[in-house]
Amino acid sequence: MAKEKKLVESITSRDVDFAQWYTDVVREAKLCDYSGVKGCLNYLPNGYAIWENIQADLDQRFKETGVENVYLPVMIPESLLQKEKDHIEGFAPEVAWVTHGGMEPLQERFCIRPTSETLFCDVWSKTVQSYRDLPKVWNQWCSVLRWEKTTRPFLRSREFLWQEGHTIHATYEEAEERTVQMWRVYRDFVQDDLAIPVVSGRKTESEKFAGAQDTYTIEALMHDGKALQSATSHFFGNAFPDAFGIKYADKNNGLHSVYETSWGLSTRIIGAIIMVHGDDSGLVLPPRIAPVQTRVIPIAQHKEGVLDKATALMDALKKAGYRVKIDDSEKSPGWKFSEQEMLGIPTRIEIGPKDIENNQVVVVRRDTREKIVVSMDEIETKLGEILETIQKEMFERAKAHLDAHISEATSMEEMISEFQEKQGFIKAMWCGEEACEDEIKAQTGGASSRCIPEKEDHLSDVCVCCGKPAKHMVYWGKAY
Amino acid sequence: MAKEKKLVESITSRDVDFAQWYTDVVREAKLCDYSGVKGCLNYLPNGYAIWENIQADLDQRFKETGVENVYLPVMIPESLLQKEKDHIEGFAPEVAWVTHGGMEPLQERFCIRPTSETLFCDVWSKTVQSYRDLPKVWNQWCSVLRWEKTTRPFLRSREFLWQEGHTIHATYEEAEERTVQMWRVYRDFVQDDLAIPVVSGRKTESEKFAGAQDTYTIEALMHDGKALQSATSHFFGNAFPDAFGIKYADKNNGLHSVYETSWGLSTRIIGAIIMVHGDDSGLVLPPRIAPVQTRVIPIAQHKEGVLDKATALMDALKKAGYRVKIDDSEKSPGWKFSEQEMLGIPTRIEIGPKDIENNQVVVVRRDTREKIVVSMDEIETKLGEILETIQKEMFERAKAHLDAHISEATSMEEMISEFQEKQGFIKAMWCGEEACEDEIKAQTGGASSRCIPEKEDHLSDVCVCCGKPAKHMVYWGKAY
Repeated sequence: MAKEKKLVESITSRDVDFAQWYTDVVREAKLCDYSGVKGCLNYLPNGYAIWENIQADLDQRFKETGVENVYLPVMIPESLLQKEKDHIEGFAPEVAWVTHGGMEPLQERFCIRPTSETLFCDVWSKTVQSYRDLPKVWNQWCSVLRWEKTTRPFLRSREFLWQEGHTIHATYEEAEERTVQMWRVYRDFVQDDLAIPVVSGRKTESEKFAGAQDTYTIEALMHDGKALQSATSHFFGNAFPDAFGIKYADKNNGLHSVYETSWGLSTRIIGAIIMVHGDDSGLVLPPRIAPVQTRVIPIAQHKEGVLDKATALMDALKKAGYRVKIDDSEKSPGWKFSEQEMLGIPTRIEIGPKDIENNQVVVVRRDTREKIVVSMDEIETKLGEILETIQKEMFERAKAHLDAHISEATSMEEMISEFQEKQGFIKAMWCGEEACEDEIKAQTGGASSRCIPEKEDHLSDVCVCCGKPAKHMVYWGKAY
Repeated sequence: MAKEKKLVESITSRDVDFAQWYTDVVREAKLCDYSGVKGCLNYLPNGYAIWENIQADLDQRFKETGVENVYLPVMIPESLLQKEKDHIEGFAPEVAWVTHGGMEPLQERFCIRPTSETLFCDVWSKTVQSYRDLPKVWNQWCSVLRWEKTTRPFLRSREFLWQEGHTIHATYEEAEERTVQMWRVYRDFVQDDLAIPVVSGRKTESEKFAGAQDTYTIEALMHDGKALQSATSHFFGNAFPDAFGIKYADKNNGLHSVYETSWGLSTRIIGAIIMVHGDDSGLVLPPRIAPVQTRVIPIAQHKEGVLDKATALMDALKKAGYRVKIDDSEKSPGWKFSEQEMLGIPTRIEIGPKDIENNQVVVVRRDTREKIVVSMDEIETKLGEILETIQKEMFERAKAHLDAHISEATSMEEMISEFQEKQGFIKAMWCGEEACEDEIKAQTGGASSRCIPEKEDHLSDVCVCCGKPAKHMVYWGKAY
């Protein structure tokens, strides 16, 4: 039992020091670590396997809407990056520059892609001529590089993994529709598969993506009450593609501009999974994206027949379509339990001599620790039901936490005291001016506008900050 | 019909100009094109979809052998790349250097990874301490960059996609076994899923990977008789990990070196698929990795009921697990046939008013153009049988071509005349000296040693080139 204690004690309590707890969980669950390359992460097997499942599920949702995957170069020539003014202003300060190839200095330097709008537009400028070539609905899974000064595992690092979707359309309406469609795909994916409830809406002018006309976002609330921007979908209008000279001919040979969108979700979302669901024993993974959904742990495995029966159980569950592993190592059951809990595996199945005698097993839920005795004859169907229940209840608990941390403010005093008392989202009216966003950030110690929701409440007629007529209701929060 | 002719005529005949045929097929099937970044490709939807299927199948084979996926940084510090002398000598001339990050010059420059042995060893040098930490069997799917001077679609480009597996083991034997195991995984995958027969064996000293002790290769024969190295598996012994100071403690706390392997397959293999199976009508894809396995083409689709029936057929086939699309565009059937053939879709299903009347459809094989009338009631099972037959016969045809292009030589005269008469592989004895490899290359106009097979024939006692005692039988060939 000494060892078991040690494993759990190796992580700080979540309520004592949330930041340290996060770092401890990432380390002990072996999700990622810092590489020898400053600011860059190694995505280790346990962390990368989560990303693989996210990829598989999200990619299928994309493809159902007609998305095609591609891969464009990792390097962007400086002249290409400079074609759209707002874009280069946003990204130039944080890119890495390639200046030498082989033994030679380059005539023009290349940056490592921080995002690929410019490359997609470059391809289309050479290949799109007619209305028959539209729309283009492309996506790539890749890594991007942004020269960040401070880094945290998954949340901020110089290189991170993501998908970036890019589309062009014949009409404004179709492009806008696609922007909103992908925003909804993200929301459904994050809520249904990751069990993370979100608030969602448009970004204010100051929080928009460099060069975008509109940015739609989904925002999740971490256990410590801070917000995490979890995915964004951008509508560019035609300014961006116009800068690249993309035009199409309609049926009567009239030339027109195209309308562009882009949308992305990154490995940051793994940070959200940890910070929404994790507890003092480690990670808690939603069953739908857990790399392992159940771990079979034999009890008194030296006794005759136990290991055979446990292995047969694993094989049967694997055959039934579950992601299942067995822990038949020489460690004590207690140590094995702690390890399974640290890794966030949604269930473990305990099977010992008495269970075998009674033709049963004990399923233990990771999220609630509830023990469920299941007949051996029913385990193949019951396990699926238990996993579905876990998925559903994980969402419900996170939703209750989110709802309990949304409040309203109609004065700055209220806003400041709300942010002092508890973290979370605060709904408040806003005049539309960036000066008030800056003022609110300063007075609350860092709360920024997170989004303008689709359905705005009318809390008051005036801006919470300056008292001038209000234009929108905004969700405010301190963000990662 | 004019249009139909145009599509086929847009590609050069394979026997007239093979290189031009290849370029034409890549362009007309829209697999990839040159990007605005010199020497780098855009992997377009049709080409990338093939890579996605290759990834899915090969990744499953990897995981069945216990491989875990990870992702390590895209950049390697120069000091890290320099840790193993042979390795840096092999790669330094062809890497791209990052010298600036954000607005600042870097203290140490980074190269964009040309391969990641150094990064994997760096991780392990910090995390592997005990025999309990071994083996590590890791892989990553990523892109790598090598500053090539001349480029060809898929076959040679500055950036390409690949997987690179890296492993370390407690014993020499276990590492050697893993090297051979992955070599066999590649062979089985390429033969079974891509329908490409190979010759396989070890590389000679001069053709080995930079820093490796042994390199195992699989070599495919293109339709023009040239060889293409299709995947390699390297055994490093302990020199490489020793350079990084990786040591493990055994049960008695004795310190030992570890033994390393690496193995990779890249998007080059798409070039092999094109050049082994393609014909004068375009691409021919093996059913197992074809992004679309059948395209339903309605005949006289304006007639009542045809489109409904064709769509219902597509839905039924999709439900039955096939990758299926319908072409219900306004183009003529002839044009649609040409397009399906150009894209290499393994079958098309023609369905018109007469077919509907007779409760049948016509399945047309892409590879042989054979037309098979199938009852509508049986199509769901019959299509699977037809696809399996195509897969099998594509391999058999490629195998017959390979076998017909393997000959033997016991003198330089024979070797030279064989390479003049026909391309292909020539088996000949070799003394083990690099000088003879150089001489053979010079005299045959470019034939290099491709591999020393597992089972060597004894063709003569002496080297085909210098007449000194022979050490090995070698497969020689002109390679891409």
